[in-house]
Amino acid sequence: MKNILIFGAGRSSNTLIRYLADNANEFNWKIIVVDIQINGNENSQRISYSVLNVKDEFERDSEVKNADLVISMLPARFHKFVARSCVKFSKNLLTASYETADLKAFETEVNKKGLFFLNECGLDPGLDHMSAMKIIDAIKNAGHKLQCFESFTGGLVAPDYDNNPWNYKFTWNPRNVVLAGQDGPAKFIQNGKYKYIPYNRLFRRTEMIEIENYGLFEGYANRDSLNYIEKYNLQGIPTIYRGTLRRPGFCRAWNVFVQLGATDDSYYLEDIENMTYREFINSFLYFHPTDSVDLKLYRAMHIDQDSDIIYKLNWLGIFDDTKIGLKRATPAQVLEHILKQKWQLQPDDKDMIVMWHKFIYLDTSLNRKVKLTSSLAVIGENSQHTAMSKTVGLPLAIAAKLVLNGNINLKGMYIPTHKNIYEPVLNELKQNGIVFSEKVEDNSSEYC
Amino acid sequence: MKNILIFGAGRSSNTLIRYLADNANEFNWKIIVVDIQINGNENSQRISYSVLNVKDEFERDSEVKNADLVISMLPARFHKFVARSCVKFSKNLLTASYETADLKAFETEVNKKGLFFLNECGLDPGLDHMSAMKIIDAIKNAGHKLQCFESFTGGLVAPDYDNNPWNYKFTWNPRNVVLAGQDGPAKFIQNGKYKYIPYNRLFRRTEMIEIENYGLFEGYANRDSLNYIEKYNLQGIPTIYRGTLRRPGFCRAWNVFVQLGATDDSYYLEDIENMTYREFINSFLYFHPTDSVDLKLYRAMHIDQDSDIIYKLNWLGIFDDTKIGLKRATPAQVLEHILKQKWQLQPDDKDMIVMWHKFIYLDTSLNRKVKLTSSLAVIGENSQHTAMSKTVGLPLAIAAKLVLNGNINLKGMYIPTHKNIYEPVLNELKQNGIVFSEKVEDNSSEYC
Repeated sequence: MKNILIFGAGRSSNTLIRYLADNANEFNWKIIVVDIQINGNENSQRISYSVLNVKDEFERDSEVKNADLVISMLPARFHKFVARSCVKFSKNLLTASYETADLKAFETEVNKKGLFFLNECGLDPGLDHMSAMKIIDAIKNAGHKLQCFESFTGGLVAPDYDNNPWNYKFTWNPRNVVLAGQDGPAKFIQNGKYKYIPYNRLFRRTEMIEIENYGLFEGYANRDSLNYIEKYNLQGIPTIYRGTLRRPGFCRAWNVFVQLGATDDSYYLEDIENMTYREFINSFLYFHPTDSVDLKLYRAMHIDQDSDIIYKLNWLGIFDDTKIGLKRATPAQVLEHILKQKWQLQPDDKDMIVMWHKFIYLDTSLNRKVKLTSSLAVIGENSQHTAMSKTVGLPLAIAAKLVLNGNINLKGMYIPTHKNIYEPVLNELKQNGIVFSEKVEDNSSEYC
Repeated sequence: MKNILIFGAGRSSNTLIRYLADNANEFNWKIIVVDIQINGNENSQRISYSVLNVKDEFERDSEVKNADLVISMLPARFHKFVARSCVKFSKNLLTASYETADLKAFETEVNKKGLFFLNECGLDPGLDHMSAMKIIDAIKNAGHKLQCFESFTGGLVAPDYDNNPWNYKFTWNPRNVVLAGQDGPAKFIQNGKYKYIPYNRLFRRTEMIEIENYGLFEGYANRDSLNYIEKYNLQGIPTIYRGTLRRPGFCRAWNVFVQLGATDDSYYLEDIENMTYREFINSFLYFHPTDSVDLKLYRAMHIDQDSDIIYKLNWLGIFDDTKIGLKRATPAQVLEHILKQKWQLQPDDKDMIVMWHKFIYLDTSLNRKVKLTSSLAVIGENSQHTAMSKTVGLPLAIAAKLVLNGNINLKGMYIPTHKNIYEPVLNELKQNGIVFSEKVEDNSSEYC
């Protein structure tokens, strides 16, 4: 029997655990799920749950020691603890998180001990790498020349449950949504030129994207796309751009909060105990003895009388005289508090994941530019098995199976850009209904 | 004979050194000026210069040991080294810099040893504290109730030498001008309400101020005004606001750089060795195969065809095909590099310091609101003895004289808000031509 140890019993682990449990009898697996708090996920004779504080080295070590494979679904800042124990007891580790310096620090030891550490193997990062690399490798193998690569992902509410003016609900950590874009300027290359977008312009530099059967989306730039030139082996590519998808109009309205300073997480507001939503907004506006807070905001932000932004802001209740009710909070925390009450995914709601890649390459045999788009939409099953939980959990779960069955024979620290990883994972994802549609437009005259 | 040890031989030390040298025979002082590099300031038999690295503890200690008083004019980050030696050898210390946590850390030892450390005793901070506190104390002593305090300072070019469309030249550290406003939101209170201005709104939330004989200025909020409620003993005041002065139109044009992201100092630009000014600007704008960089900027920033901003930007040469010529630089460093060539104070130019305070108080005997404004303008003598060097150096120099002559008998860590400091310093500044004009408007109906 093989033991699979999973750190993290949060909502996004649901589908991962179910997949492993469904395969546990066939492969004789035992699944041990540990977290600081257990809320009850899947149940099966093959699964055991126990409470564990990942920072407690003794507890952690005693679990890792007995594992055949370790998966960490904890928030990214905890991975380093898990990784330390994995190195100590020579265990392979899988995560769905960015391969940060924290994790990179273990690379020498991982190599020395011949372990396999696989990071960025969830949705975004994860499925985006795999689906893009499959096409990139195919284009290269055909001898064509890739000129442009754009990639966008979004976690949204499914069309049938999309019933608010922002066309958005929280399907993952609300705090991350409020802080999105604040860790430095977006960086990318466009037609051979480096481009930088500061936070205060990020939500106005969007581009419109249509995904067949799912309608229009808008994309804003996501972090540092330059990082992926080397990771995808795209040295010299004229255009590379990664982004995040929302429904059209979201970014322009969200930008109001950015411009106000309401997404700032760097300081605590004064006298917040007595503050209402309306006063929160007013604290970012000039003083006037009689003008209303609404009017002052519309004027400061140049919002026309017929703008949909007015309806969006009113719907959130930001001008209400409701007490905030927090004892100590940054502007970002107050905003998160207000949004949580409005953007919560309801128990009967379903979420949706959309992913979209665009490639433009020079077909060297025909000497023509070809545009290839690849898109995916996944609708959640229910509030337990969301599209988010499925698209984060299945790539990891499948990778776990491949590793345990000896079907991935790599040693070292990887993200799933290697064919030996993405090919079998994408194949099995297809069997689970996660299928990309491709569209080819020959003789394209599009700039990208 | 008493030894005065001055750390820092930069341009802003000129007037400080001259004042001390002028008084040296009378009081039998010796002035020792040390810095990493000596460019030649004042010369006199009473002054000696020597090269010293402040981080070298041995060299530093050997100078401090023999001093009767120490003054640090070094960049703020070096004060902690000077302070350490002063505490070690029980020497009093004066600086013109903000009393940061670095310096506050020495307070216990300063108190224990009965030393006198005086910080924020230059222009701003310094003269602003002294001139404001004199009026605040007078208003309080008359039993009136202060309702509003606003205070603005600006370092500008003198009107006769003001010959560029920005009405601005560098009269102090250019780097600080480029980074101004980036250390957190501006915080203040207006009519009893806390207000916050994020960096990206700072240069659009200006107010217009007229100073008699010197014309119009615009003021933008400066850092955290809330800090001064306790320092000025103004608990419960409905309005407190500190700001920085520029000539009208400066801020709106400067805001273009802020919005672009060209003032960002947090990352290095790619491939800067091959970049021109024009390409630098273009790196913050969307790609277009034919549109000009100029047009793209005007469109993105909503700059009308008849806007003075166009003239200001063109005058700087930011659209030129000139190579930047730096090997490694952040956006802020590139911008500083471009500005330095245009905003440099020429050898024959004179600079100007303007300071303006506004007080509104309830005259409790007459039950009327009174508005009192106090303003100062100082024109530099020449490029050695600038208005900046004079208004930073004289308050420090006078304070030094008072301390050495035993006329200030305070022990502990101070800023010059105490009457025993500001009264004699202001009196002697007056004899040196630094005089505030006051204007009183009875029965004011002004909001502030």
